[in-house]
Amino acid sequence: MADCVFCGIVAGSVPAFMIASEDAGLAFLDLRPVFPGHTLVIPRDHIETLPDLPKEQIPGYFGLVQRVAVAVQAGLEADGTFVAMNNTVSQSVPHLHTHVVPRRRKDGLRGFFWPRTKYGADLEATEIAEKIRAALPAS
Amino acid sequence: MADCVFCGIVAGSVPAFMIASEDAGLAFLDLRPVFPGHTLVIPRDHIETLPDLPKEQIPGYFGLVQRVAVAVQAGLEADGTFVAMNNTVSQSVPHLHTHVVPRRRKDGLRGFFWPRTKYGADLEATEIAEKIRAALPAS
Repeated sequence: MADCVFCGIVAGSVPAFMIASEDAGLAFLDLRPVFPGHTLVIPRDHIETLPDLPKEQIPGYFGLVQRVAVAVQAGLEADGTFVAMNNTVSQSVPHLHTHVVPRRRKDGLRGFFWPRTKYGADLEATEIAEKIRAALPAS
Repeated sequence: MADCVFCGIVAGSVPAFMIASEDAGLAFLDLRPVFPGHTLVIPRDHIETLPDLPKEQIPGYFGLVQRVAVAVQAGLEADGTFVAMNNTVSQSVPHLHTHVVPRRRKDGLRGFFWPRTKYGADLEATEIAEKIRAALPAS
């Protein structure tokens, strides 16, 4: 897509610090990293969100995400990784991208990501689970 | 694994508000949700992290994650989703689980997740990209 910066990286018209460029997708450094080594993994096609990813691209795309998670952790001698997608809300570029962020124990993000609430009663959880189940696409 | 609460849910000995129970994995409500409808997707086997997921399970597992992302958004009339895994660091249960959190515009999490930094110089980014590339497993 003409105006998409990630399509520009795929096309080679936008520079990037490339980690991998394969049929299944590309991986390159995020230039505003949460921590150095923060990598983005994208499909080659202009696919906006995870729900839009064609089923036949799931093995290749997530196989690449997995290998990048291995490489970010091993290559940077990190203790773990944070692997995440924002779909639509908080999604800065409308081209599917999975963030792979190196994590270290005591890196300051402990407890940062997850403000939590509780269900008021089992009934509320039961009703919400039923709504989600009713919307689950067939496999 | 005997002490794993998610293996207990797989075995049926720990109750859960179930969304899906399939060969590829299970999906159920997180009882301390970021927002109501926050769902966890796990593989049936006791696999600790994304790097540990056998390659042959990637299509089924991430196919289920995708379908749950569709269902959480559609079933709860959300505007999008946040889909994330903590591998090792910040991982509360050492059994791979992907969080699928419904997101809404102006839900208060805007800008919450991502404190960002910058690379000091291109050289730093070049060196870091090289370290990650060198550690990338073969596909």
